Amino acid sequence: MHRFISICLGLFLVITLRPATAQRTPATYRSVEIMPDRTVIFRIKAPQAQHVQVNGTWPTSLGRSVKLELKDTLFEGKVGPLPADAYEYEFIVDGLPTLDPHSNLVTRDGPWIQNFLLVPGPESTVYDAQDVPHGTVTSIWYQAKSLDLTRRMHVYLPPGYDQGTTKYPVMYLLHGGGGDEEGWLDRGRANYILDNLIAAGKAVPMVVVITNGNPLHSAAPLSRSLSRQVTITPGIASMASGKFEESLINEVIPFVEANFRVYRDAAHRALTGFSMGGYQTQNITNRYPDTFQYIGVMSMGLFSSALRGSGEYVKDEHVRQLKALQAAKPKLYWIGMGKDDFLYQSGVKLRELYDEIGFKYTYRENEGHHDWTSWRLYLAEFAPLLFK
Amino acid sequence: MHRFISICLGLFLVITLRPATAQRTPATYRSVEIMPDRTVIFRIKAPQAQHVQVNGTWPTSLGRSVKLELKDTLFEGKVGPLPADAYEYEFIVDGLPTLDPHSNLVTRDGPWIQNFLLVPGPESTVYDAQDVPHGTVTSIWYQAKSLDLTRRMHVYLPPGYDQGTTKYPVMYLLHGGGGDEEGWLDRGRANYILDNLIAAGKAVPMVVVITNGNPLHSAAPLSRSLSRQVTITPGIASMASGKFEESLINEVIPFVEANFRVYRDAAHRALTGFSMGGYQTQNITNRYPDTFQYIGVMSMGLFSSALRGSGEYVKDEHVRQLKALQAAKPKLYWIGMGKDDFLYQSGVKLRELYDEIGFKYTYRENEGHHDWTSWRLYLAEFAPLLFK
Repeated sequence: MHRFISICLGLFLVITLRPATAQRTPATYRSVEIMPDRTVIFRIKAPQAQHVQVNGTWPTSLGRSVKLELKDTLFEGKVGPLPADAYEYEFIVDGLPTLDPHSNLVTRDGPWIQNFLLVPGPESTVYDAQDVPHGTVTSIWYQAKSLDLTRRMHVYLPPGYDQGTTKYPVMYLLHGGGGDEEGWLDRGRANYILDNLIAAGKAVPMVVVITNGNPLHSAAPLSRSLSRQVTITPGIASMASGKFEESLINEVIPFVEANFRVYRDAAHRALTGFSMGGYQTQNITNRYPDTFQYIGVMSMGLFSSALRGSGEYVKDEHVRQLKALQAAKPKLYWIGMGKDDFLYQSGVKLRELYDEIGFKYTYRENEGHHDWTSWRLYLAEFAPLLFK
Repeated sequence: MHRFISICLGLFLVITLRPATAQRTPATYRSVEIMPDRTVIFRIKAPQAQHVQVNGTWPTSLGRSVKLELKDTLFEGKVGPLPADAYEYEFIVDGLPTLDPHSNLVTRDGPWIQNFLLVPGPESTVYDAQDVPHGTVTSIWYQAKSLDLTRRMHVYLPPGYDQGTTKYPVMYLLHGGGGDEEGWLDRGRANYILDNLIAAGKAVPMVVVITNGNPLHSAAPLSRSLSRQVTITPGIASMASGKFEESLINEVIPFVEANFRVYRDAAHRALTGFSMGGYQTQNITNRYPDTFQYIGVMSMGLFSSALRGSGEYVKDEHVRQLKALQAAKPKLYWIGMGKDDFLYQSGVKLRELYDEIGFKYTYRENEGHHDWTSWRLYLAEFAPLLFK
């Protein structure tokens, strides 16, 4: 028994004190404490720091950057009460972004790596990995000849897919500039949102396809060749090139419809994306009006496909495309925008144009920013509207 | 065109300067520079720091914790020349672990979150996401009634699985204490190692199953209910309870063999794991000698299954089990151990016992520690020995 205990102790030490992480010590304090009123106390031990703050994606009115005060040996501060929701946060210690050393909840969207926080409550359970039937998520590679790449996509298959013989509708989910095909899963929690909505009977079972929207990249950073990359590439320019949009139509959709048990008509296809993915969503649906009957534009405004490449913005051409789209009678054209989004005004302009030409849409405005706290909400509200 | 440029600029700003990450600025320096001789220069801007070091999993002789010196506005230091290999690293700024703000290559194993570095060379290409056919990786949930949980596993299906009708052998891959079912993919790069070995004809195509070895957990932290967890649970005690081992035999293997096109006999099953997973590997193969013909014990020594629970170590019982295993004539019993592993002496004792009773094994000793630089190497060397 002594040997058992000593080996356990050894393993515990190696777990808390690895050679490469000499400063990792067992938690002697709670770094995140959610109080009964949903005020959240943040703490971090930073013995030599002068200035510590916590930044998070909670509502602006609560202070998105909160200074922590030194109390005994810990920097501590409180935020809230917070709405029951999911948030990203990080500590800034003397100017350097620092993950919470005592949380293992870390997510990534493109180059942004932050801690994750779920403030429990009725409004946030849709983001939790609840004890409901879970769909599968498969990472699968497909040929994109137009981009000269073998590329990676994620495919969510709803609970029961493997047991049944029914066909499913498909939602295509696009990420923002600088992101990749992991963001909607890792940070966006798309699979859990779908699991929860389907289990509650709020959304119909559907397949969800998450692609990489940067046509220069085969996959997320760790899934493409590592020997060349150590720095961050935002990828904005390449995402706006229009090449991904063509590849989605000509390569992604045919691959999905050949390899999964799905319907193959516009009435069973949805397309949505945020930010640069909202731009791509507009590009695709404006140019291919007969492909999707359900369309969601998140956190993106007037940024017309007619602008692509070297062209000036030609309003007439944009209107012509929109009229063709209107003629295709999409069952849903949904726009989500946060009141504090830096693209808010472009959204106003888009809606003004749509109103001017009588193009129908459903508009959802939330108290929110250009971030995942908005995009998770949009997905949770958009998915229930599909295929009904 | 002006609108296009200004929106691009806006998106670039939001990408580099999000509300919640006020300190993220475009890279004005290279944080990691690999020189032609494979010396690596590390840099980080930390204007107010007193003491900065970089810790990494390179060979001990090169200094696993290297102090960086302030040069102009950057802390800078060099390590190496490094062997062509894959490493974890992190900066320690005034005592706080800090990710490289200019790298998007971050991996997690349990609570340890570090940056990833590939030093290119012939020995490290096996870890890279090379342009070879890629298998699929599916995250799938199964019932573990003995643990009263629906649990998550990852299943790697080799390239061609979906097109063919052949059956495949299966390797079961176990993680260490405190880890979960994401470690072997995210940090261990198991799918890319297999892709590369299969493409090179060095390993036979096989299915790989990666489970969560902590019988108290349904899944990795972000994939189980978030409303209750904010602190780290090492999980050592629960991983040593013996319950996972029984569930692997009675629930995991039957699920895999019912749901995937695989062989169902010992000659087509391999089991391997490191650290606590090496302990579980011993437990399972000692108790179920007829289930696996290929066995790999990584970074773990004498830590007998007879010790489990309240029992004293009973050498006679251990020897009896080993003789039964020997009678089952496993085709491979492989042991990997690093010279600097803190469990090295337990490995000496295990081999002494095996030698004493004439139990055959293959032994691989590397210049290495109890870390992923060893475990990736072991997988790359173990997989080619299987099912031949």
